[in-house]
Parts: sequence; structure tokens; C-alpha cells
Amino acid sequence: MVRISLDVMGGDFGPQVVIPGAARALERHPDIRFVLYGLEDQCVPLLDKYPKLKASSTFYASELAIAMDEKPSQALRRGRGKASMWQAIEAVSKGEADVIVSAGNTGALMAMSVFCLRMMAGIQRPAIAAIWPTLKGESIVLDVGATIGADAQQLMDFALMGGAMARALFEIERPTLGLLNVGVEEIKGQEEVKEAGRLIREASPDSIDYFGFVEGDDIGRGTVDVVVTEGFSGNIALKASEGTARQIAEYLRAAMSRTLLAKIGYILAKGAFDRLREKMDPRKVNGGVFLGLNGVVIKSHGGTDAEGFAAAIDVGYDMVRNGLKAKIENDLKKYHASLPSEGAASGMADEV
Amino acid sequence: MVRISLDVMGGDFGPQVVIPGAARALERHPDIRFVLYGLEDQCVPLLDKYPKLKASSTFYASELAIAMDEKPSQALRRGRGKASMWQAIEAVSKGEADVIVSAGNTGALMAMSVFCLRMMAGIQRPAIAAIWPTLKGESIVLDVGATIGADAQQLMDFALMGGAMARALFEIERPTLGLLNVGVEEIKGQEEVKEAGRLIREASPDSIDYFGFVEGDDIGRGTVDVVVTEGFSGNIALKASEGTARQIAEYLRAAMSRTLLAKIGYILAKGAFDRLREKMDPRKVNGGVFLGLNGVVIKSHGGTDAEGFAAAIDVGYDMVRNGLKAKIENDLKKYHASLPSEGAASGMADEV
Repeated sequence: MVRISLDVMGGDFGPQVVIPGAARALERHPDIRFVLYGLEDQCVPLLDKYPKLKASSTFYASELAIAMDEKPSQALRRGRGKASMWQAIEAVSKGEADVIVSAGNTGALMAMSVFCLRMMAGIQRPAIAAIWPTLKGESIVLDVGATIGADAQQLMDFALMGGAMARALFEIERPTLGLLNVGVEEIKGQEEVKEAGRLIREASPDSIDYFGFVEGDDIGRGTVDVVVTEGFSGNIALKASEGTARQIAEYLRAAMSRTLLAKIGYILAKGAFDRLREKMDPRKVNGGVFLGLNGVVIKSHGGTDAEGFAAAIDVGYDMVRNGLKAKIENDLKKYHASLPSEGAASGMADEV
Repeated sequence: MVRISLDVMGGDFGPQVVIPGAARALERHPDIRFVLYGLEDQCVPLLDKYPKLKASSTFYASELAIAMDEKPSQALRRGRGKASMWQAIEAVSKGEADVIVSAGNTGALMAMSVFCLRMMAGIQRPAIAAIWPTLKGESIVLDVGATIGADAQQLMDFALMGGAMARALFEIERPTLGLLNVGVEEIKGQEEVKEAGRLIREASPDSIDYFGFVEGDDIGRGTVDVVVTEGFSGNIALKASEGTARQIAEYLRAAMSRTLLAKIGYILAKGAFDRLREKMDPRKVNGGVFLGLNGVVIKSHGGTDAEGFAAAIDVGYDMVRNGLKAKIENDLKKYHASLPSEGAASGMADEV
């Protein structure tokens, strides 16, 4: 049994997407038990239409919902203890759920998650890991927006957490990992990235196979299983690529409807286009994973539909089944035990 | 007449691409006069095959060529005064050419350009501006790799230079401009970007129409004419998007050759696919422009073909014809004159 708490009010469409999405995920994974948090008048009538889901769920009425454009600090003040988002996260911190999934406001979800779940021991800052479709399959890219300007040690932590997530998600023993960098030799380089490379090489953890630096185009190529970067450039890379994919889809649509021959060609090749559309379907890989917290938090795209939300639930389900949290804790423990400097450094700090 | 100096040895294929590329550009712009620098034995026999180009060019034999993987510092030491790249840049600093185009090693080209041409007065750091195809046409994105971790004032300078380039390239009076940022509200933000936003708003230069922050997916959407960011994230955005475009092209190719119906459909819709390919053709927008130097330097992709190299020459040609350098100098002058603090600040510095 996997216990999943849902912020039913999250996302652009709230219960209209979350409830049918949960129903779909339940069909694929009948061992899910849901804990649902939302506004009673909007959720209960809808839930009645999905008897199977209702039977596998416990519904709790929340007092309020966090708006998609609410500032995280305000959301935290206003929603503490009362908002569906807060309560869904709290279900994890109280041990009543194994993972929480929300399509709500990313900043608010991160702020509440950090507040409620606290950072994992040994981790300073959280990361958001995205699952990125590549020519070889899928890769994990982190951080895509939680920690702007991460330093070398934080990048090292992200590497360990991303490696653990790859083991949980792809079920490979020693995922390959690269640090995102620019290829051109610079007069002034990105010192944090170089230093992080040194830290990873020195530690050379069993849990990851360090490849070295990778460039932006290596992500889509699938050069490595895990790509590590700080949150600003990771977010820019993710959004820029999404923009390019949308742009090409638009070009393709326009090109295929321009002439009669193109239209006939399109009809004949429809199966191929459907395959392509499926490959490019962002709903298939919906679900950013918050890493570094004492609990698993999955962020779904706010504008997704029921199928996309179900995909985010699938990610949460897999993360629990494959023991993501234990894998991260285990890898961190091994890493810290392997550091000869750790004892020495704290001893020195005591003397000073 | 536009005088263009070429580093004939630059790029993965050197003279094999540069010379036919120059011949193509000359057909489109018969008023170009080329100054060519390269190894005599490799260039002269090839040049003899292009009599029109030969008639419009002056060839100078260089002693050596910079390798594509040479470190910038080493290239600078070894190539000073002797390399084709150096000599082609020097032609601009000596006033013998209006612009230099090279498909060579980016780091070496930047290092030599800074050394030979020097920074423009009032500019601390150079930027590389890319021309990015968008749903609305084209936008300028800078910096894509010259200045890693630019500070707020440097971003302000990039905004002025990018605005001037947009006026030169797109021939619009007041280009719209956005600062690349992440959308999510952050616990810790990118201070330089926020501060740069304040600087642009305060200065509110006539030459640009400041839009505010934009996100990664706004680039392909064409939300603004000019997107400003520091070199690390700009390079990552460019490469990640190139990777995505290649990835989708590969999916499309695979999808269209999988079944007989798809193949027939492809043949019928071939015109449409050709249009799409043309839209996605990176050669069409080949040519990064180095900004902030006392001279115009165009960097072509190293792996490009003759058509792509000709496109880079086209960019250089347009930049000269439309007075890029004068536009930048003029905008910078107006900006510095508009700063009330500039005089006051230096006065204060004197007192202290």
C-alpha cells in the first residue's frame, strides 16, 4: 500500500483535474490509498462521481486554498494549518501519508514543505528535480528552480540526491552524472561548478558514476542519467527547451495545414504524428520532485490535465515504492562517513 | 563598399568552407571587399577556383592557424601577430576592414578580440549576442557565453548594446527588451537581475522599450526583441534549446520512416517538411556578434557549411551597413549623460 496525500485545490483547475487524475492513477495502481484535502463544497460532489476513488480515499475539508499567484511568504502566513496545501504536506510530516502531490503554486509549495518537513540532516538547501525526455529515454535534471546560485557543496549534495533519485526511478545501480557547464574556455569561469567537480571526484561515491562536465545540448542527447546545476540556469534550460518544443510543434502544425498535399500527407502519416506527439507530450513526464526534505513532495504542472496529474501521482508512487528517501539518506550517510575532513574540521571549529 | 576580413583557417573545415561561403555572400552583396588571412598552400589553390571572389579579395599569407581546441591563453601567446585569426582581427583595429568573421575557436577569438580591439569606453565586459529564431521572427539573446556571472551594471550595459544591435539588425526604432529570470518566487532570488531591472527602469533609455522579466519559454515565443542574461545561463539556454530541436528532428525522422503509410505521407507532404526544415535550419541564423569591443566581430559556428558561413558574413555585412558600432556608442553616450549620479559619484569619490 502506498499512501498519497493530495492538495485537491492546487493547479489552474483544482478538483476538476485532481480528482479525475487521482481516479486514473488508482486504476493503474490499485494499492494506492489517498488522503484528500480541499474545500468541501467543491470536492465532495465531484468525488461522489468516482465511487472507486471515494472508496480508496479519506477526505478532509480544508478552510482555504492557496492561489496560484500568491507570494510564498503570504501563503505561509495565511495558509498555515488551514490551507489544503499545508494540510496535505502535514499528512506526510505526521506520518499519515508517504508522499504528497500538488499542482499548486511552486513557491508556496516549496516554502510550506521546507517549513513543515524541514531539511534532511546534512542538506542545506532543497532542489527540484525534473524528469527530462531524451533521445535515450529519460534523465533527471536538478535543480530547476529551488536554489538560485547554489554553491559547490550544495551542488555536491544535489549530485548525491539526484543519483539516489535515478536509482529509484530508473532502477539502475550506478547512474552516470554530469555537471552542467559552458564549453567555451572562459576568461572568467564558473568557480562553483569547477569546485563541485573537484568535490565529486574526491568523494567518488559508489552511488554515482561521475562523467564530468556536460553542456546544454547534452541534456536532450541523454549523455548522462543525471544533470546537476544550480536553480537559475536549470530553470532557464527547462523553460527554454519547453519553449523550443512548443515552437517546433507550432511550425509543424502550420506546415501540415498549408497545402492540400500536405494535408493528405498528414492524414496518411497520422499514426507517425501521433507517435511523435506522444514522444513530445509533456504530460508523460509531469512531476518535479522536491529533494532534500524529510518527506517526498511531488509538484505537478499547474496547467496540466487529468492524465498529466495522474503521471505526477505515478512519479510519487514510484518514488515511495523504490524507497527514494531511504536511498538518499543512505547515500548521504556513506558520503559523510567517507569524508576524512569532517571530523577534523569540526574539531578545529571547537578549538577556535 | 563593406570591407570584411576573414580568418580563412577558422572552423572545423577551414578554407573548404570559408572560401565557398565568401563566394556565396559576394553573390548576394557585390559591394563586399574581402581581406583574407590564411595558410598560403591551403588557400591560394582553392581561391583560384573562385575568380569573382579572388577579384574582390586581397589575400595575405599567415604563418599559422589556431586549433579549435587550443586554450585561449595559449592561442594568444602562440598566435600573436602571426595567426590568421589574429591578423584578421588586426585588420579591423588597423582600419583596413569594417568587420571580421571567423568560424574559429570561440575562446581564442574572444581573447584575441579583447586584446586587439580593446573594450569600448564605458563597457567593462564583452557579450556574445545570438540571433534566435522565434514564433514571431527573430530575437537577440545576449550574453550566450562571454561573461559568466555578469553583475547588474554589466547587464545594464548588455541591455544598451543589445538594444542597439536590434535597431541595426531588425531596423525597428525602439526594440522591446526583457531580462531573463525565473518565474517562481524564490526564497533567495537572483539579486543581480533584480538590480539590473531597477537600473534599466531608472535610466529608461529612449533606445529600448523595457518589458520587465521574461522566462525561458518567452525566448522561443518571441515575447521581446532582446533578451538579456549573463553568459552562463544564456549559453545553457542556447545549447539546451539546440539540443531539444535536434531531438525533435530525430523523433520526426524516425516517426516518418517507420511505416509505409508514413513514408507515403512524408512524400506527399515533402514541401511542408522542407518548409519546416528551413524554419529549423540553424544555418539561417548563423553568426554570434561580439559586443562591447572597438570593432565588430562575428563568430560563425565552427561546424557550419558554406551556406552557414555565408549567413554569418551576411550578419557582419548588415551590422556594418546599419552602423552597429556607432549606434552602440551613441546609446552609451546618451545613457552616461543621463546619469545624474555619474558626476556626483565621482565628485564624492574625490572628497573621500
